[in-house]
Amino acid sequence: MRFDKMTKAELSDALKSEQARYDELKGRGLKLNMSRGIPSLEQLALSKEFFHNVDFENAFAEDGTDCRNYGVPFGLPELRKLFAGIMGADADNVIIGGNSSLNLMFDMISQAMLLGFGGEPWLKQGKIKFLCPAPGYDRHFKVCETLGIEMITVPMTVHGPDMDTVERLVASDDMIKGMWCVPKYSNPQGYIYSDETVKRLASMKTAAADFRIFWDNAYVVHSLYGDDHLASIIDECAAAGNPDRPIVFASTSKIVYAGAGVSAVASSADNMKLIKARITTQTIGPDKINELRHMRMFKTEAELKAHMEKHAAILRPKFEAVIDVFERELGGTGLAEWTNPRGGYFISVDTLDGCASETVAMCKEAGVVFTPAGATYPYGKDPWDKNIRIAPTSPSVDELKLAMELFCIALKIVSAKKIIENA
Amino acid sequence: MRFDKMTKAELSDALKSEQARYDELKGRGLKLNMSRGIPSLEQLALSKEFFHNVDFENAFAEDGTDCRNYGVPFGLPELRKLFAGIMGADADNVIIGGNSSLNLMFDMISQAMLLGFGGEPWLKQGKIKFLCPAPGYDRHFKVCETLGIEMITVPMTVHGPDMDTVERLVASDDMIKGMWCVPKYSNPQGYIYSDETVKRLASMKTAAADFRIFWDNAYVVHSLYGDDHLASIIDECAAAGNPDRPIVFASTSKIVYAGAGVSAVASSADNMKLIKARITTQTIGPDKINELRHMRMFKTEAELKAHMEKHAAILRPKFEAVIDVFERELGGTGLAEWTNPRGGYFISVDTLDGCASETVAMCKEAGVVFTPAGATYPYGKDPWDKNIRIAPTSPSVDELKLAMELFCIALKIVSAKKIIENA
Repeated sequence: MRFDKMTKAELSDALKSEQARYDELKGRGLKLNMSRGIPSLEQLALSKEFFHNVDFENAFAEDGTDCRNYGVPFGLPELRKLFAGIMGADADNVIIGGNSSLNLMFDMISQAMLLGFGGEPWLKQGKIKFLCPAPGYDRHFKVCETLGIEMITVPMTVHGPDMDTVERLVASDDMIKGMWCVPKYSNPQGYIYSDETVKRLASMKTAAADFRIFWDNAYVVHSLYGDDHLASIIDECAAAGNPDRPIVFASTSKIVYAGAGVSAVASSADNMKLIKARITTQTIGPDKINELRHMRMFKTEAELKAHMEKHAAILRPKFEAVIDVFERELGGTGLAEWTNPRGGYFISVDTLDGCASETVAMCKEAGVVFTPAGATYPYGKDPWDKNIRIAPTSPSVDELKLAMELFCIALKIVSAKKIIENA
Repeated sequence: MRFDKMTKAELSDALKSEQARYDELKGRGLKLNMSRGIPSLEQLALSKEFFHNVDFENAFAEDGTDCRNYGVPFGLPELRKLFAGIMGADADNVIIGGNSSLNLMFDMISQAMLLGFGGEPWLKQGKIKFLCPAPGYDRHFKVCETLGIEMITVPMTVHGPDMDTVERLVASDDMIKGMWCVPKYSNPQGYIYSDETVKRLASMKTAAADFRIFWDNAYVVHSLYGDDHLASIIDECAAAGNPDRPIVFASTSKIVYAGAGVSAVASSADNMKLIKARITTQTIGPDKINELRHMRMFKTEAELKAHMEKHAAILRPKFEAVIDVFERELGGTGLAEWTNPRGGYFISVDTLDGCASETVAMCKEAGVVFTPAGATYPYGKDPWDKNIRIAPTSPSVDELKLAMELFCIALKIVSAKKIIENA
């Protein structure tokens, strides 16, 4: 029953019964951290060969390169080729980075601040601004905050960022130099940018000639129900005459081992000329032994995708368990909306206005830590205090059911109180 | 015999006989690249267990941390402790980085440009300058060049940078914000900074309050004849009331595998507060599995140093072979001076003025590539065209003897011609 249609007595009854359920759960002494998108132990066990598949005697790349010594600053050709396929790029325009794609993003942006992207250094041009589709990824926003970049929130829709707003903003303000995008299974909603969105991003007129899209394709192969289509931002930008607009990122942290994978960046030939010159100053070269571990596990894109099917088999029941609890506990209440992703690492929930922080706080009090409310918005501030990111990958299905039950109960208590207050 | 005391006929004879030797060597079709400091295959074979010593089932740190998953952004406590011992720092003030200490240095400086070191961002303060003791390390100079930092060359002495010059410069110019140092077995000379040099660096008055010393202790444990003393810059700066002055770097690229090791940065508690905040924005965390490989190989500083003895046993005959050829071929000629390092990766040679480029070019023509002349100076320009860096670690002793013979012959030919020209 919709809570906003309840009488005061009905609300009071609901509150009482949910409070009793909450107290019971709290009494159990739960202890679970669901704040971040962390692979489960079962997923980690999929890549055991990663520890064994390169040896002192066979540490050579396809072209004979000795991966135990210096050299090959842009990564092994065969790994660049593999990433090129996944990222929709030319292998010459792919560079393999260290273990963290966030690090690559931070570096691309801080180097743009210092050295520019074709034009003057951004820092010398004035107060730099980025468009931040939100709810979005807190670590993207933190990069902007640390580097002193002003963030402009853009609403997210099921098809990607609200393009009318995006087009209007970038056309009118030449200090808007960048935009964050997680185009496939967006963090936290799991939305996939539509072809129209990608085309509009590629072809829109920007006041800044050195405007760049930071295309974090973190979940490009992280599908739950078979692969889903995403248009190639590199192809669309090239077709629209804006080849230098996109800078595309990917990583294997959630393919092999979190923090022990490799990252990659891809872009146009001209951007790559700049990026390669900077990277060869910044580092002598990547960890080629670790690159080789990847190539031994995934010789082809097909093998990589078959591996991702195994991840999906583990993750599907978890995502579905969350949705089941939401439907059972919150269906028809009018208290929340949630996404139902076909991939990625998160589910996004919108509560009634002003209910997110308190819901998360009540869950924490009962032993279950969710991503802090507000984290999905620039500066950690959700203007409506309504969005919460659910990270279902790490707990077991049973833990997850209990945690989400607690979440729904807390949400009902907080919402009922709010409705009574506002009545 | 000293070439500058020879008669024209004697010089002409010498030239003729060296030219014959050169032609003979050239005819052999040598092919050897000695341009960079690269570990030899024999050295690589010292660390075979690195490929095997961590397994899926035992990928846990001392405190139980699961190294296969996210977390621990500053590195495993036990590895920070190991580096702390080597670097003369407090373990709380050590952070483990990726596979490249150059990357850490680049990041520290570019972040200082963007965000400052306590004071205003360097970029906002005007044209930043660095003191560059030279001959020095080309990749350090390239970082400055890329980031638009003006380099001021400071002469090197056997005790370290010429401190009278250093003190005079830093006292008078508040745009001098940094200084590069390779304090132990300097690149390329192999000099060790004296206690007096370290003390003067620590206590000197600087016009800039946010002046920093970038202390690249790349060869801290890379001794050839047992450990040599170097005063602790961290302790000396703290004692002199300038605790935030030094930022210290080290790496394991030349301990385990080149490009597959780990790096570390150490500094004062206050600097570390800044650095930690920046690093947690820049990356989610380091490759802990690789950190664990290190800890399994080197449980203690003593074990690490015992491992370095094995490197030394391989490298000593190579360094000595170079020195032998120099003494035999160039001793008493007055044509060159060379260093005789007790550690590190390089030997430095000074020719007569104007002879370095041609010597290197003649060697290249005969199939042996040395570090380009000029590389050891800011902007790749040696004002006297006299310094050449010798990298003896990678070739076999026999290859090395031949290569150095060629080098000395070429040097004699170039020098004799120069003397005749100038007569």
